[in-house]
Amino acid sequence: MIKKLIFYILTTTFSLSAFADNGYNLWLNYKLVEDVSLLANYRTQLQSLYIPYQNATAKIAASELENALKILLNERVAETKEIKENSLVLLKTEDFTKYGLASKSFEKTDAFAIEKKMIQNKPVILISSPSEIGLLYGSFKLLQILGTNGDISQINIQESPKIARRILNHWDNLDRTVERGYAGFSLWDWQRLPKYIDQRYIDYARANASIGINGTVLTNVNSNALILTKEWLQKVKALADTFRPYGIRVYLTARFSAPIEIGKLKTADPLDEEVKTWWKDKANEIYNIIPDFGGFLVKANSEGQPGPQNYGRNHADGANMLAKALAPHGGIVMWRAFVYDNEVPEDRAKQAYNEFKPLDGHFEDNVIIQVKNGAIDFQPREPFHPLFGALSKTNTMAEFQITQEYLGMATNLAYLAPLFKECLDADTYAKGKNSTVARVIDGSLFNNKISAIAGVSNIGNDINWCGHPLAQSNWFAFGKLAWNYSLTSEQIAREWTKLTLHTNNSATNEVVDILMQSREAVVNYMTPLGLHHLMGWDHHYGPGPWIANKPRADWTSVYYHKADKNGIGFNRTRTGSDAVDQYQPQLANEFNSTKTCPEKYLLWFHHLSWDYRLKNGETLWNGLVKKYYQGVEEVWQMQTAWNKLNGNIDPEIHLAVKQLFSIQYDDAVMWRDACVLYFKQFSGKPIPAGLEKPKHDLKYYESLEFKYVPGI
Amino acid sequence: MIKKLIFYILTTTFSLSAFADNGYNLWLNYKLVEDVSLLANYRTQLQSLYIPYQNATAKIAASELENALKILLNERVAETKEIKENSLVLLKTEDFTKYGLASKSFEKTDAFAIEKKMIQNKPVILISSPSEIGLLYGSFKLLQILGTNGDISQINIQESPKIARRILNHWDNLDRTVERGYAGFSLWDWQRLPKYIDQRYIDYARANASIGINGTVLTNVNSNALILTKEWLQKVKALADTFRPYGIRVYLTARFSAPIEIGKLKTADPLDEEVKTWWKDKANEIYNIIPDFGGFLVKANSEGQPGPQNYGRNHADGANMLAKALAPHGGIVMWRAFVYDNEVPEDRAKQAYNEFKPLDGHFEDNVIIQVKNGAIDFQPREPFHPLFGALSKTNTMAEFQITQEYLGMATNLAYLAPLFKECLDADTYAKGKNSTVARVIDGSLFNNKISAIAGVSNIGNDINWCGHPLAQSNWFAFGKLAWNYSLTSEQIAREWTKLTLHTNNSATNEVVDILMQSREAVVNYMTPLGLHHLMGWDHHYGPGPWIANKPRADWTSVYYHKADKNGIGFNRTRTGSDAVDQYQPQLANEFNSTKTCPEKYLLWFHHLSWDYRLKNGETLWNGLVKKYYQGVEEVWQMQTAWNKLNGNIDPEIHLAVKQLFSIQYDDAVMWRDACVLYFKQFSGKPIPAGLEKPKHDLKYYESLEFKYVPGI
Repeated sequence: MIKKLIFYILTTTFSLSAFADNGYNLWLNYKLVEDVSLLANYRTQLQSLYIPYQNATAKIAASELENALKILLNERVAETKEIKENSLVLLKTEDFTKYGLASKSFEKTDAFAIEKKMIQNKPVILISSPSEIGLLYGSFKLLQILGTNGDISQINIQESPKIARRILNHWDNLDRTVERGYAGFSLWDWQRLPKYIDQRYIDYARANASIGINGTVLTNVNSNALILTKEWLQKVKALADTFRPYGIRVYLTARFSAPIEIGKLKTADPLDEEVKTWWKDKANEIYNIIPDFGGFLVKANSEGQPGPQNYGRNHADGANMLAKALAPHGGIVMWRAFVYDNEVPEDRAKQAYNEFKPLDGHFEDNVIIQVKNGAIDFQPREPFHPLFGALSKTNTMAEFQITQEYLGMATNLAYLAPLFKECLDADTYAKGKNSTVARVIDGSLFNNKISAIAGVSNIGNDINWCGHPLAQSNWFAFGKLAWNYSLTSEQIAREWTKLTLHTNNSATNEVVDILMQSREAVVNYMTPLGLHHLMGWDHHYGPGPWIANKPRADWTSVYYHKADKNGIGFNRTRTGSDAVDQYQPQLANEFNSTKTCPEKYLLWFHHLSWDYRLKNGETLWNGLVKKYYQGVEEVWQMQTAWNKLNGNIDPEIHLAVKQLFSIQYDDAVMWRDACVLYFKQFSGKPIPAGLEKPKHDLKYYESLEFKYVPGI
Repeated sequence: MIKKLIFYILTTTFSLSAFADNGYNLWLNYKLVEDVSLLANYRTQLQSLYIPYQNATAKIAASELENALKILLNERVAETKEIKENSLVLLKTEDFTKYGLASKSFEKTDAFAIEKKMIQNKPVILISSPSEIGLLYGSFKLLQILGTNGDISQINIQESPKIARRILNHWDNLDRTVERGYAGFSLWDWQRLPKYIDQRYIDYARANASIGINGTVLTNVNSNALILTKEWLQKVKALADTFRPYGIRVYLTARFSAPIEIGKLKTADPLDEEVKTWWKDKANEIYNIIPDFGGFLVKANSEGQPGPQNYGRNHADGANMLAKALAPHGGIVMWRAFVYDNEVPEDRAKQAYNEFKPLDGHFEDNVIIQVKNGAIDFQPREPFHPLFGALSKTNTMAEFQITQEYLGMATNLAYLAPLFKECLDADTYAKGKNSTVARVIDGSLFNNKISAIAGVSNIGNDINWCGHPLAQSNWFAFGKLAWNYSLTSEQIAREWTKLTLHTNNSATNEVVDILMQSREAVVNYMTPLGLHHLMGWDHHYGPGPWIANKPRADWTSVYYHKADKNGIGFNRTRTGSDAVDQYQPQLANEFNSTKTCPEKYLLWFHHLSWDYRLKNGETLWNGLVKKYYQGVEEVWQMQTAWNKLNGNIDPEIHLAVKQLFSIQYDDAVMWRDACVLYFKQFSGKPIPAGLEKPKHDLKYYESLEFKYVPGI
């Protein structure tokens, strides 16, 4: 099999290598417009470029447009010193009157419009914005429209981001390993910074600007104080200088014990005057060289990270002290809510709410609480985090995980827009209907001063940036939803596919179908019906529903599934941990009753008998097993559909994904069989007839060891 | 400065990004032939392709030729079913008579010829060889001739490699870190092997085949037994299968204690029957899935690695036991001579000779001793290792270091062909004049059964493979010299430059000049006049001549330079450690006397007064200091020359190297000032007039700490 595969690779890939796509260009993969009449139409309307601005951002927009149009239209669209007919014009709103245009206002500085109109009696396509960054965003938008064969003859769109800070979190360590990273290693070549600016930093900035991402936290939440030292801040500055003209601000994780580790103080107590002064001085030092430094992201008193609780203080004490140091400079503190007590709680899902709800309203204006999408930890499916909607007097932001720590790393395809949307669209009912998580995050529900959203990046130094070629769609989707959470998962999938893979309509549909079913397939073969946290120990690769006997019970799997001869699932209802009542009453009631609880969350909230009747009439046992088998079947379907696309996809990408589906199929079977055999011990029931028997016994799966799994 | 630099980057790099070269293509960077008449000439002679073979190697040769010629000639040179006029024909010698050709013999199976001749009355260019691998080598050679605008109208060349096994050593760990690696991380994506064959494996194989490299050791000499387990051998097999059609065999490092660690035996004593059986079984297991497995590379009883001496056995016992396990399968054991005693020796440089000379003749036929080019450890300059020529009854191979552990990592340019040649061309006088190291290694001096040469790779997952764009020339040079050590450094530099950078004649000359002076510049600003081992502790970055007080004296710098108020240098003459007498008498006498010892080795062999008169009349102190200053000046010259090439080099490459020269300049100044100030303490003499004063004092340099230096 491998021999054939390798022979196939050698003859196919290389013989077409002139066309082989290594994925480096991401969705900025400009290609000549194929439709002949559309090409003529674009060429007619985009004959020259007028951008009367000289700053770096404007020059970047001009460059991107010229280079992209050269490829898209196979024509040189040159900059002119005056507006010509049938040109592309970029103007800031403050200059409208100079050109005889009626004034226009935008809600946000980085908003933009793209309109076909007349300026000085000449037909043009006008990109306008209050800022050069908005003009850059508009330029990328126009290129995306061209790249997806949109009509620009009467274009009239306006876009304004709802969430102000759209941020990537890189869990990158200073030794360049990436925690939970599966796409190689860290992009940041610290040793050669500040003087060596790798071209990848520039292409990273372009990719992010093209989807509206305007912030990046460079360092791991499991932080290293060294980054705050003078020498390393120069390296950070070099990156900040590189990103700035792309509208991207740099943030850092702040190690709470830095005053001790690098300041040589005896304490890091946030109420200690010397400590406060140390952080103030540190902030001054940073802003002196990075004037638009975004601020700090902090993981404190969680999983061994130092924090205010080490000194008998609370999260607000810690966050506020840092916030005051940053406030004079306009910086913010993103304080993570992913904390859990030294004492193992009765229900880990309740922890963060219990810690932060009492502190609501106690935080400075420039503090924002960073809350994971769900209450446990980035599982394939989690109900939205009860803190969304619960903090009515505190800035709140969401943290999504783009890297697939629990969804199959870089070998399993899982298009995550549906997961992001599931959370964003969820109604918290905090202020009645339509109190969606998205409206909490964009600040509109509670009139917050700051709004932000973070995605834990899936980016590394692999040539294709994300490990799995199709996982680029998740970076893309995160940016697109951060900009406009009303987009649908399918729209985004379609756009990414056409821009990146250049598939014809039929192939595009196929790829979109594959993407759209992928997340649910993973849920099915890993953690169906509301199950969660069943993965392998430590490295998190593969199944481990048997994980028990660890230093903390809430680090085990058994704590979460609680399978026994009577049933399975975590009782979070009022007869159990009552986590349901951390939600608003309508939801609490809905979750509380098996009649109304959505089945996708069933075992998240309920411990049920193996004989419990699901909506489709199946017993819970049979239904659970069938979900596992369905998941594997769905991988097979995606794999088959993908293989059929051979010839319609770039051969290098097609082959890479084909090989990865082969691995994913093995992984899905491993998950299915390990989990079904494990739970079968408790249900005492057989695998339903007609389903293929597992190849191995449970002991086999329990004995599997995976060494050197990436990301830890 | 950084702002300007960044602005420069943003506007220049991106606006020309259509032409920006990321270095990925290495010297396989095919471009349209620019000279119009040459292009016509080539097209006339290469109108079609005839390759009457179906195996994988033949298909690879066909693919490479078709794809490359498509670009070089901008024409499709298609395969035909018969020989046509003015075609390119590939034939194995065994088929000559079929085509009416007189028989031809070659010295080696992988040799080849390229000739303009008539076949069946048709003018063709014929590539011939006993093997398909030879045909592949000949194909790459022809492409290199075309790529350097060579004349093929009357081409008649024949090449035969002198050294049979031309091997890369990857010090890659299973967690993908690369020991002493400065080009990112390991290429081998173990987690996704065996099923995911990264395109990079294929391009790695192409690059190596194009320079005749036919072996690769995948794992670090500081070894991990896990690679020998069943699951991991499948991953190795996948790589072996990928490389095989490119003529590349896979080797592994064998951890001597593997029988204990993975075999669960109680001992790894090479004389123990169970141990012998374990290795025999392991060899059988390997060859069952990798029939042409090359063999083992072993670092034993060195720097903590387990080995036969742990059991009171000697190197021959250990090597022979492994050799016997591999012999039935045709495998070899490369046993490293880089060992040193538990007891700190009086002179580390004598260690390996003292350990291995007594064992000469005691090794099995399929054992080869792998000897570093010099007796200490890959310093910027070392005299050749005294073991070359001393082992007259034992296969001996050389180990060179391509990665720049001691020559500035990935920020300092050092073209190493001169270093390789200095060793290869050195006369050992083992059998009179012309007993060069090269003739030891190619087996001709002592009629050895096996010949091999190894290079510790500078390859990682950086897009440009080698970290510094110009460091690719060292991988290229190693391969070229492994194939034919009679080539000159300049020839190789010129070829690499033209193939990779596509510079015009004048720019090529400039680049070659820069390359040719680079190694000596490093010697000058780091370790001139025979000094050695002065680098920073552990990570080996930056200067550390003050390093003292370490667990072993021979890990310090003071042990090697022995600077005191009376002088500097290591007395290896007959009045000192007498390391000179490990060489043949002619050389020993030459090194022994300051009158005849080459000044480039002066302080390697002599401890001399600060007032000692060098050949140019300067005192040793003045001469030493001037060397340091000269080295910095040379970096400035290289930097200036490179900057002038702006416009004549791809902009992305030009900018990257420009930035790296800027770092190199800083590094060179740091080395110069730290070393001069340090040694000045002992000489008590001033820095000669006219030389710029160091910016900082010695304490400053001694206090510098470098964290997270790559490669450890």
